[in-house]
Order: sequence, then structure tokens, then C-alpha cells
Amino acid sequence: MSDTAGSPPPVAELLGLLAYAELVAFDQMAADARLAPDLRRRAALSEMAAREIDNYGRLAARLEELGVEPEDAMGPYVAPLGAYHEQTEPKDWLEALAKAYVGDGVADDFYREVAAHLDPPDRELVLDVLHDSRHADFAAAELRAAIAVDPKVANRLSMWARRLVGEALSQAQRVAAERIALASLIVSGAGDLDELQALFKRLTQAHTARMGAVGLNN
Amino acid sequence: MSDTAGSPPPVAELLGLLAYAELVAFDQMAADARLAPDLRRRAALSEMAAREIDNYGRLAARLEELGVEPEDAMGPYVAPLGAYHEQTEPKDWLEALAKAYVGDGVADDFYREVAAHLDPPDRELVLDVLHDSRHADFAAAELRAAIAVDPKVANRLSMWARRLVGEALSQAQRVAAERIALASLIVSGAGDLDELQALFKRLTQAHTARMGAVGLNN
Repeated sequence: MSDTAGSPPPVAELLGLLAYAELVAFDQMAADARLAPDLRRRAALSEMAAREIDNYGRLAARLEELGVEPEDAMGPYVAPLGAYHEQTEPKDWLEALAKAYVGDGVADDFYREVAAHLDPPDRELVLDVLHDSRHADFAAAELRAAIAVDPKVANRLSMWARRLVGEALSQAQRVAAERIALASLIVSGAGDLDELQALFKRLTQAHTARMGAVGLNN
Repeated sequence: MSDTAGSPPPVAELLGLLAYAELVAFDQMAADARLAPDLRRRAALSEMAAREIDNYGRLAARLEELGVEPEDAMGPYVAPLGAYHEQTEPKDWLEALAKAYVGDGVADDFYREVAAHLDPPDRELVLDVLHDSRHADFAAAELRAAIAVDPKVANRLSMWARRLVGEALSQAQRVAAERIALASLIVSGAGDLDELQALFKRLTQAHTARMGAVGLNN
């Protein structure tokens, strides 16, 4: 039997996932900023990217407080998040914004659900570092304006959003299979399988509403 | 005769250059972070990149206060700074750090010299937004460690640094020729040609000292 006294608390799994997600979101938004059609939009996205790093710093500090090296906690998520982003490299400004709007939207809803069952101070920390609505509002406004100018854009971006969600689900399944402690945290938070099904139903409904709000269809 | 009442003050030229330099530095450091050999270094560089954006925000706010659109003030510097970075794309982590250490070092020395002749509050603002020494210290420590492990690295990086300085000088000449107001600001700050020569001598000496400090040679 192994001594588990020194093993990290399950919440470190979630904090590690979130910390790495922030680092990657920073990286991705910084790269997306290059696709911006003008300097004003480029600066706006760069400023939003910088906020992700502040969040990364808070999560890393909490991991250290729990006696976990941030690098160790993030390690298991490098491959699945890397695969997701490699499979969904945006080709242009609108694809980048749709990815941020749709992908971060689902991910944030999911993290919010999981956080609800955490103890303080981790619950507050996780809720606090989730993307503020500025980025989503900015992306939604740009998407709506682009679809108003050229309605055909909606079809292309709807297909793109379906690809994003498919790829995200396949990486999420991989993570759930490999990271037992994280999966347990989610399942035990939900309580039973009915509640777990209800959680996925809520995520799906919120996603559908978000798509509709900017003129995309599922 | 044109009415110059509405034309921006000369200091807006310098603030526009600095603002765009911050946006580009953010972009460059975020891209360089991908070259980091591990997550700890990647996070460190990402955090330093985020600081550039805070500085961008302060410069943009000051430009707006002066009645100048940040985009307009930055516009003239997009091509020369873009050309510099295109010609000096780092191939690996050490080239990226040497570029930050050598390139930002010379640029910051130069901005500091120009700032000395500005009126408050612009003098304080410019001095304040120049790269803090954390980035240079981080880069210097990494370069020294790499050269200690493999002294041949010093030759490769010394050649690389010479290329960086050459390219920076050629773009600086282009800017000086095209942006009369900025060039005047520098020349009138210096006072006379002797003092201008002395300025370039100080920049060269500081550059040589910086190279030597990490084991690179001119």
C-alpha cells in the first residue's frame, strides 16, 4: 500500500488544469491578436490576453500554498490542451473570435459547475479567474457585426463551432479517462448520475443559447 | 501656410513609437514563451509579456489625453518595427532571450536619453514604462548559464547580436528620415551635434558593457 499522506488534494487537479488553460489562453489570444484587422482591435485583444496571465499567477500561487509545484499540476494537461488547439487553429480573425466565444463559453460554464461544489477559498478563486464577460462581449459584438454585413459568414462559423465542440469533447473524454482524481471530483460534486446528466444538459442548453445569441446555429 | 493649431505635440511621436513598441514587445514575448524549454520558464516570460500591455495602456491613455488617437500615433511605426522583427525572428529560446536582452537594452537606453529632455508628466511616464530590469535579469541569467554549459554558444549568439544591432540601426535611420518631428525632438533634446555624438557614444558603451556582462563579444 502506498503512503498517500503526501499526495496532492484532488482540487489541485482542477487548479492545475485551469492554470494551464490560462497559460494556453494567453498564448492563443496573443497569437489571435495578430489576426486583428486594425490596431485598436489588436490592442483590445492583447489587453484581454494579459488578464489571463494575472489569473495564471493567482492559480499558481494557490497551488504552491497547497504544496504542489504548478509545473507538476499542469503537466498532465499539456498534451490534451495542445491537441485541442492544434486541431482548431483559427484561419482568420472571425474564426479566432468564434473559438474564444464558443470554446471558452462552454469551458467556463463547465468550470463554474465544478467550482460550485468546491470548498472555500478554492470555490471563490475558480469563479474569480473564469473569463470575465468582456472577452465574450467583444467577440459576440464582432461576430454579430460580421454576420450582419455578410449573412453567409454564419454558415461557415456554425460549422466551425461544431468542429470546436467535437474536438473539445474528445479531449475532455481523454482527460476524464486519464485523470481519475479530476473525474471523481466532478462526479462526487454532482452527487449521482442523474445530476451528472442534468449538468451536461445545462451545458448543452447554455451552448445553444450562446450560439443563437450571435446568429449561429447548432 | 497651414494651420498647425490642431497638430499633435512632438512628444506624441515618441509616445506613439513607444506604445507600438510595447504592443510588438508583448506579441514577441508571447511568441517567445512558446520556445521555452519548460512550463516554469514559459510562465515567467508570459508574465513579463503581460506587463508590456499594462504599459501600452498607460501610453495610449496619455495619447488620448493629448487629443491624439493611439492608432494614428502608432501608425507610422508599424512598418519599420515590423521589418525589424521580421528580419530578426529568433530560431530558438536563446536567440529569443539574446534579442530581448540586447535589443531592448539598446532601445531602452535610447528612450531613457530622449525622456531626460521631456517635460513632466511625459518624462516620468516614459521612464516608468521602460522595461523593468526583471526581463533583462532573467535573460542575462539564462544566457550566462547556457554559455557556461557550452562556451561555443557565445560565438553564435555574438554574431546574432551583431545582426540585431545592424538591423535595428537601419530601421532607426529609416524612422529618423521619415519622422521629422521625432528626429527634431531628439536633436533639440541633445542641444547640439557634439552632444548628439556623445549620446551615441554612451549608447555604444552601454551596449558593449551589456554584451560583456553575459559573455558575448562585439
